[in-house]
Amino acid sequence: MNERLEKQMRFALEIDKEKNICRQTHLSGHGRRETDAEHAWHMAIMAYLLREYSNESVDIAKVMLMCLIHDIVEIDAGDTYAYDAEMLKTQKAREDAAKERIFSLLPDDQRDELTALFDEFEAFETAESRFAHAMDNLQPLMLNQSNGGEKEQIYKRQEKTKLGSETLFELTDKLIRDNIAKGSLKG
Amino acid sequence: MNERLEKQMRFALEIDKEKNICRQTHLSGHGRRETDAEHAWHMAIMAYLLREYSNESVDIAKVMLMCLIHDIVEIDAGDTYAYDAEMLKTQKAREDAAKERIFSLLPDDQRDELTALFDEFEAFETAESRFAHAMDNLQPLMLNQSNGGEKEQIYKRQEKTKLGSETLFELTDKLIRDNIAKGSLKG
Repeated sequence: MNERLEKQMRFALEIDKEKNICRQTHLSGHGRRETDAEHAWHMAIMAYLLREYSNESVDIAKVMLMCLIHDIVEIDAGDTYAYDAEMLKTQKAREDAAKERIFSLLPDDQRDELTALFDEFEAFETAESRFAHAMDNLQPLMLNQSNGGEKEQIYKRQEKTKLGSETLFELTDKLIRDNIAKGSLKG
Repeated sequence: MNERLEKQMRFALEIDKEKNICRQTHLSGHGRRETDAEHAWHMAIMAYLLREYSNESVDIAKVMLMCLIHDIVEIDAGDTYAYDAEMLKTQKAREDAAKERIFSLLPDDQRDELTALFDEFEAFETAESRFAHAMDNLQPLMLNQSNGGEKEQIYKRQEKTKLGSETLFELTDKLIRDNIAKGSLKG
């Protein structure tokens, strides 16, 4: 096997570990907690099917790839719950170290490409990153809603969705208000 | 919420169930069995990173989407183990019924688009479907190899990889021979 393919395969095997990272979100039907890999898969399909609602025109292949890789750093850094203030303080340093280690398994050109794509997602400055973030928010909200709602600071998590898609923020707002009406969220 | 978005969200929630379908393949590190959604996520990233090895030029966004959706029918039809002769007999009928039910949750245009993409994957007649199948074979082989190899009929499962990528078939062949040499496969 040539060195390039060997590196690519080493990375491909390494990211298998993302399937061991559990999120706070539970599967629909009050199932177990979902894994990072499952969340990324779900986001990528939703991005494709809902792309007509992006505020700006997007390169949908780029959005999908961004969705698929955006949590790879959690293999080392773990899932930082959006409402865990202590963990949030160290999140960037932990994720930067993970990004360096994991993407460096790839050949240099692909390391640079995936690092840039991850940074673009984090920076929230392009249409693609804003729409990918909208999926990162909407997907768990949809699951939480199906299970009867989440408890804390939901609106804070969702506020950036509006920047990616006005239409999907209207939906977000409706889902949250429904939860409040049902009593599963404090109004 | 308008009817179109409502249908899209109903489909998005329905496919969450793919995370409950377990495959025969175990995660690396002798982990639990992987889910269909995790397998699809892994295939899509591998397709992107390994696209340079496709025998023919491919629309990589199409390959990735094909990878992401190719197992949705298993929500109803279940995972048919590649070496289960009895289940293989009824696989097509079970998957056709599932395809009809699940994709029909979408608006008509998206139902038709995803149905066509699924059929294209199954028909194995385009460059994209051949490369997606190569990923469908290589991804579990890679995991099995990392765990010490599989036991039965491995070559039969892998023979079509060559049609999608000569380079990745050479790798496949090497992985299988390594397993035989280590005694974890019967030669």
